[in-house]
Amino acid sequence: MSDRIAHPGLRAKVMTADEAATFVNDGDLVGMSGFTGAGYPKVLPTAIAKRAKEFHDRGDSFSISLLTGASTSAELDGELAEADAVKFRAPYQSDPIMRDKINSGQMKYADIHLSHLGMMVQEGFFGKMDVAIVEVTKILEDGRIVPSSSVGNNVEYLDAADKIILGVNSWQSEELEGMHDIYRIPLPGHRQPIPITEVGDRIGSPYIDIDVSKVVAVVETDSPDRNAPFKPADETSKKIAGYFLDFLEGEVRAGRLSYDRYIMQSGVGNVPNAVMAGLLDSKFENITAYTEVIQDGMLDLIDAGKMSVASATSFSLSPEYAEKMNREAKRYRENIILRPQQVSNHPEVIRRLGLIATNGMIEADIYGNINSTNVIGSRVMNGIGGSGDFTRNAYISSFISPAVAKGGALSAIVPYVTHTDHTEHDVMVVITEHGYADLRGLAPRDRAEKMIAIAAPEYRPLLEEYVDRAGQGEFLQTPHELAHVFDFQKRFVETGSMLK
Amino acid sequence: MSDRIAHPGLRAKVMTADEAATFVNDGDLVGMSGFTGAGYPKVLPTAIAKRAKEFHDRGDSFSISLLTGASTSAELDGELAEADAVKFRAPYQSDPIMRDKINSGQMKYADIHLSHLGMMVQEGFFGKMDVAIVEVTKILEDGRIVPSSSVGNNVEYLDAADKIILGVNSWQSEELEGMHDIYRIPLPGHRQPIPITEVGDRIGSPYIDIDVSKVVAVVETDSPDRNAPFKPADETSKKIAGYFLDFLEGEVRAGRLSYDRYIMQSGVGNVPNAVMAGLLDSKFENITAYTEVIQDGMLDLIDAGKMSVASATSFSLSPEYAEKMNREAKRYRENIILRPQQVSNHPEVIRRLGLIATNGMIEADIYGNINSTNVIGSRVMNGIGGSGDFTRNAYISSFISPAVAKGGALSAIVPYVTHTDHTEHDVMVVITEHGYADLRGLAPRDRAEKMIAIAAPEYRPLLEEYVDRAGQGEFLQTPHELAHVFDFQKRFVETGSMLK
Repeated sequence: MSDRIAHPGLRAKVMTADEAATFVNDGDLVGMSGFTGAGYPKVLPTAIAKRAKEFHDRGDSFSISLLTGASTSAELDGELAEADAVKFRAPYQSDPIMRDKINSGQMKYADIHLSHLGMMVQEGFFGKMDVAIVEVTKILEDGRIVPSSSVGNNVEYLDAADKIILGVNSWQSEELEGMHDIYRIPLPGHRQPIPITEVGDRIGSPYIDIDVSKVVAVVETDSPDRNAPFKPADETSKKIAGYFLDFLEGEVRAGRLSYDRYIMQSGVGNVPNAVMAGLLDSKFENITAYTEVIQDGMLDLIDAGKMSVASATSFSLSPEYAEKMNREAKRYRENIILRPQQVSNHPEVIRRLGLIATNGMIEADIYGNINSTNVIGSRVMNGIGGSGDFTRNAYISSFISPAVAKGGALSAIVPYVTHTDHTEHDVMVVITEHGYADLRGLAPRDRAEKMIAIAAPEYRPLLEEYVDRAGQGEFLQTPHELAHVFDFQKRFVETGSMLK
Repeated sequence: MSDRIAHPGLRAKVMTADEAATFVNDGDLVGMSGFTGAGYPKVLPTAIAKRAKEFHDRGDSFSISLLTGASTSAELDGELAEADAVKFRAPYQSDPIMRDKINSGQMKYADIHLSHLGMMVQEGFFGKMDVAIVEVTKILEDGRIVPSSSVGNNVEYLDAADKIILGVNSWQSEELEGMHDIYRIPLPGHRQPIPITEVGDRIGSPYIDIDVSKVVAVVETDSPDRNAPFKPADETSKKIAGYFLDFLEGEVRAGRLSYDRYIMQSGVGNVPNAVMAGLLDSKFENITAYTEVIQDGMLDLIDAGKMSVASATSFSLSPEYAEKMNREAKRYRENIILRPQQVSNHPEVIRRLGLIATNGMIEADIYGNINSTNVIGSRVMNGIGGSGDFTRNAYISSFISPAVAKGGALSAIVPYVTHTDHTEHDVMVVITEHGYADLRGLAPRDRAEKMIAIAAPEYRPLLEEYVDRAGQGEFLQTPHELAHVFDFQKRFVETGSMLK
């Protein structure tokens, strides 16, 4: 047995995943750890999927309501969805099999701001939580736990659940001990200011204290997190990163930002990684990140001495960088803090720190509304994640995306979005490989001009045509021609391309 | 001369409005006080409008960029718009003449979250502010000012402007002295937690300190605020209020709310006033309000001992209640606090206090997206105001509206909104005279069922027909049929009614 389980009572609870899975029953509300492929339970989901199939094979129902931090991996969302073991999912997912089950109507999915779900569980909104299944790095002698590579909603789930199953993963570095900062935000009526005034402030404990008597099982594993491999930045990403840096430089010239102490929030992906690579060679120093996930580019910035602190709720590292983290966690924990997602995504701290938020999108419209979630209005991709938490309360909210997708068949700039996740009031800057559109303080018609300028050249005449025609209408604050507002998307559905 | 100007240097600056208006020039960026018809400068706008007309008559250009707290009155927005004296307006307006100029394309209007504009001025985003024109109740001997019936962005404008014009309004009760709580929120890099943990906490000074050397003119007036008369609640409003209270009672039964210390935020209007009338006869005690504006119903709740504190940035009282406030300000200032709108609408405080936000809307769609601003997508009514500040960060976000408008020709529940101001992720509860739709934690298809149930009965079959047809599509997370998504609105434009 692993020496990572120091509590004698919990050593006595060690069992196989299949044995532990019997504590999860049909209809249960289950809270699992896991955030962008880091820190999710590695073996329990497979065992629960197996159990579900056994139930189904003998004609019995078995499906759970599943809450996590955010997305997880094929081993969790994929296997459970494939086994039809999940009837309800929140607050975020990104697994292809689960996505198909959701879009085909076989599963229900509530796409909820990442900062909101924890408090909904605290207030008992979804009813009592039956089981919390949480990956940990280590169990101390007194029963407190050292979290693993994500914190997410683990504290809320461990506090709320009737039964707890802990997965002790010896693949996670023991040196993660000390990297976490666990701080509980109570329900209204008892809330005090969250005392973070600098990104690096530690305000809680490195450990999660749990009610040991609720632990029904401890399962050992030695499996890696499953994050996506890093792709080298392509030319488009580099151009977008270049325009993003131009925008930042403009803010410095305008006296609204300094080369010292720029605070970043960043969505996940290749374009954000290209932005971080761009920052490596920039004049910005003492960069900090108050964000959801630690990405490869942030480790590079830390290694280069450009980034002093990164605060997040999870890692989202390539396998190569995850190995590096495992080797050098002791060093990195001087510069990295992992917090509960209620804290990493908290409006109060986001607004106070005054960070610059940068997130991806599916499409933006000419007036600056953003669709982050639903392709052609109906087909959910992943979900809003934390982009709403950050966009709404950041000092500057930006969105970055290539101007086209599917080889040019889809324009990221359209007359009207088929789903709105971020409104014209929230979106300040949009950046593509053709430039940046600074929409702040502009009336809608002036925004349209800026947005068309960053669309792909082949789409600009079509967008201009729409604006011209919409401008023939009676009402000109936000000119639209309802009969043609979705022509781009309709054309794509009918012909396979938004181009005429 | 009024004894309300105790500072000798400022007494020497007293002049007529026409004289003071000469300090405002073509192209200026002007910040004025004023929030929902309270505390706006009473005589300067007319004088500036007159000056603009004189310029125009002799063929010279004259137009300003105008920032305020929120909406003002016909004497400000109406007269300046009528004189074509405003080229750019932010962050909110509700004047019929100005609205027409905006919708006809003659004026530019940026519809900005009320909590955002002050900091944009602080960071100099709109360039230097030329003149601040601010109504005050009184000027102390040392030059500090007692604000009048709204605070709004006055502090930011007074701090930023090159020149200051003060309007001393002796109509405002001198007993307002002590009701205000002026607290400056600095730009990022210097921000500390805002130390409000209870609605009634006072954290600043009752006075605004200004740079007296910037004051170029002091103008005296004795004119009332111009708020809308109170209309007695109609049957529809009473029914909506009834369902809102049912919803609150349900929260109490579920253990998520207590009869003691319910914290309200409320938009302006007859339905909110009906809600407050309903609260008068309810079991709720020690109600507080952390909101934008003090309405008649709140004074009734205070008088009845049901409301202990109301915190806002402005009054929005009927003429009758404004007179009452003027007579009894000394008593009311024990229960009322007026704060800068950056504080009254601050995400940090809103999230911490855990208030229940209740705002009006133009239309909601079957999945819970809300249009608060643009009729048929293009014609702006007023603006988003503070509804985004509160909705996004409240503990529970609700929207209230009659199910139909224009005698039944417009349904407030439609398949898809023509403009999105609050997204499906933010909107938790929608209430009409037919019931409440609690959308929290539901997948979109389950929300549609709840929303259709609160639509007007004559519109339910049309909505069900849409849902049925959209449900024939391939992707069922958020079923939509793009070709028919705006049929309701198109039918209204073509036939004068959304009904078939």
